[in-house]
Amino acid sequence: MNKNKQILLAKRPEGTPDKNTFKFVETDIRTPEKGEILIRTIYVSVDPYMRGRMVDAPSYIPPYQIDDVLGGGAIGEVVESKSDRFEHGDIVLGSFGWQSYYTAKEDEVRKIDKDIAPISTHLGILGLTGLTAYFGLLDIGEPKEGETVVISGAAGAVGSVVGQIAKIKGARVVGIAGTDEKNKYLKEELNFDEAINYKTSSNLQQDIAKACPNGVDVYFDNVGGEISDAVHVNINKYARITVCGAISSYNLEGKDVGPRIQTTLIKKSAKMQGFTLGDYTDRFGEGSEALAKWLNEGKLKYEETIKEGFDHIPDAFLDLFEGNNIGKLLVKVDK
Amino acid sequence: MNKNKQILLAKRPEGTPDKNTFKFVETDIRTPEKGEILIRTIYVSVDPYMRGRMVDAPSYIPPYQIDDVLGGGAIGEVVESKSDRFEHGDIVLGSFGWQSYYTAKEDEVRKIDKDIAPISTHLGILGLTGLTAYFGLLDIGEPKEGETVVISGAAGAVGSVVGQIAKIKGARVVGIAGTDEKNKYLKEELNFDEAINYKTSSNLQQDIAKACPNGVDVYFDNVGGEISDAVHVNINKYARITVCGAISSYNLEGKDVGPRIQTTLIKKSAKMQGFTLGDYTDRFGEGSEALAKWLNEGKLKYEETIKEGFDHIPDAFLDLFEGNNIGKLLVKVDK
Repeated sequence: MNKNKQILLAKRPEGTPDKNTFKFVETDIRTPEKGEILIRTIYVSVDPYMRGRMVDAPSYIPPYQIDDVLGGGAIGEVVESKSDRFEHGDIVLGSFGWQSYYTAKEDEVRKIDKDIAPISTHLGILGLTGLTAYFGLLDIGEPKEGETVVISGAAGAVGSVVGQIAKIKGARVVGIAGTDEKNKYLKEELNFDEAINYKTSSNLQQDIAKACPNGVDVYFDNVGGEISDAVHVNINKYARITVCGAISSYNLEGKDVGPRIQTTLIKKSAKMQGFTLGDYTDRFGEGSEALAKWLNEGKLKYEETIKEGFDHIPDAFLDLFEGNNIGKLLVKVDK
Repeated sequence: MNKNKQILLAKRPEGTPDKNTFKFVETDIRTPEKGEILIRTIYVSVDPYMRGRMVDAPSYIPPYQIDDVLGGGAIGEVVESKSDRFEHGDIVLGSFGWQSYYTAKEDEVRKIDKDIAPISTHLGILGLTGLTAYFGLLDIGEPKEGETVVISGAAGAVGSVVGQIAKIKGARVVGIAGTDEKNKYLKEELNFDEAINYKTSSNLQQDIAKACPNGVDVYFDNVGGEISDAVHVNINKYARITVCGAISSYNLEGKDVGPRIQTTLIKKSAKMQGFTLGDYTDRFGEGSEALAKWLNEGKLKYEETIKEGFDHIPDAFLDLFEGNNIGKLLVKVDK
């Protein structure tokens, strides 16, 4: 019989995770009991927030413990069912992470419709990624028609959806990303109004000012650090800053230190608000419906970077911090 | 005839203002024309925000120009009226600043009622100070019954009102101030639950944690800097941080640098929002009414530190940054 391949947390990383962070093991596959199903994993998601869970500190989700299975969102096929709710061949979404098989209780996963869009989109634009963009932008950023929305990490999974929703809402959209290829994608494929390459910019603060002649009304921040410092200087009166991620700081060994934000917030009567998707669980229905509608209307496009092979999951995860991927990064574990 | 004594901005300060910042001059008093009144100044207000206006940078109120009359809120007596709306002996409130006389257009000032409370309160608890506390706490901080509210600069003009309003709303109130005398006042006179002396604390972060066993739900920040860094570490999920002032940074010659706040805001789904009173002009009526009611019911106490003599205005202003005063700091210029 097949074995279950798993990737466990071997050692908490200091700074950037490396091969010592991960441990590959094989375990027996547990046969499902009544009310359970056996899932064969097809896709697993790799996301920046997982770096945060590798640290042993209280946060919005509990940290991984040593020898825990890593990862989070995953999609698989039901290969054996002892539940009335599922049958062999159903495609399901759950949080079973980086393992090739999972024996789930029937209420741990939900069935996804194979016909609306490729199933992988449920880990991306129709899943937590899309919902994160939707609530962070609309509930905290509240862009109004004609306002300017700036996004850091703009070509990433969340950022690329944020920009498109902001365009749907009639805003001027400026993305910040780290390669010309990404910026070309933002402008030509996603119709961003401007895109700034922070790596080649000699004066980011000035380049943001140039790209935002009317100032910055909404800043959707995935990155933090010096990129955000440069955006903050350009915000308008009553600006809203959605703090979604701070990927620049996740692998820092020292402290994340920079200009304090207080005087800027006072002068601009501005709001800076952090969130995690868990704050919006009771509104997931609303978000999913809107995203699916826009996707069907052709108003939302998405890009996926799909790596292949279970053994490459850690590499794919580490790629997130290299900033090379466009759109949602996934690993296809099996067909 | 009397001369008008004025204090002008002589030189923009770098770091802490000193005697070279100010210039005393005497000018002729302009006789009021139709629709105007002549005011003899009684009280002038000195406030931390005036330091910000001495810098030549765009902010929520225009910076002072060299040779501008300094100051802001002031109270005086009408000594000559060419307006139907005012008569000799009326007490008026306006923004005519640090000068002994002022010839005002009738719509530049408003009459105040001498009978509700001492007239000086209109520069303090019933004036901009009280309104700042009211809107900053209730509109941004939104304390709920049983929540914990922490205030920096707690014995200052704004802070001492914030704490009392938080008590009225049923919160647990913890003040941070810089002398034992102030903290005694906060606990014994204003019924704060705890008060922390940041100057004698050997571990402020820990002392805040001890004084807030249930964490910090609302932080009303008048101070910024390291004091606020220590509070931020202690905030709860869904905390609200009202950023009202950052007096620790106003006289800094270098940059105001410290831990970036993004990851804290994400982990706690917390909000940090700056404001200035100008954001609430259309709700001043509501605020003034509530403050006067609480004052009459004995639910609000106030302390004033009143210096005497026109020549001491700059000293009084500089005292703000020494942190020696309790409550609202005013200068009585004339009887």
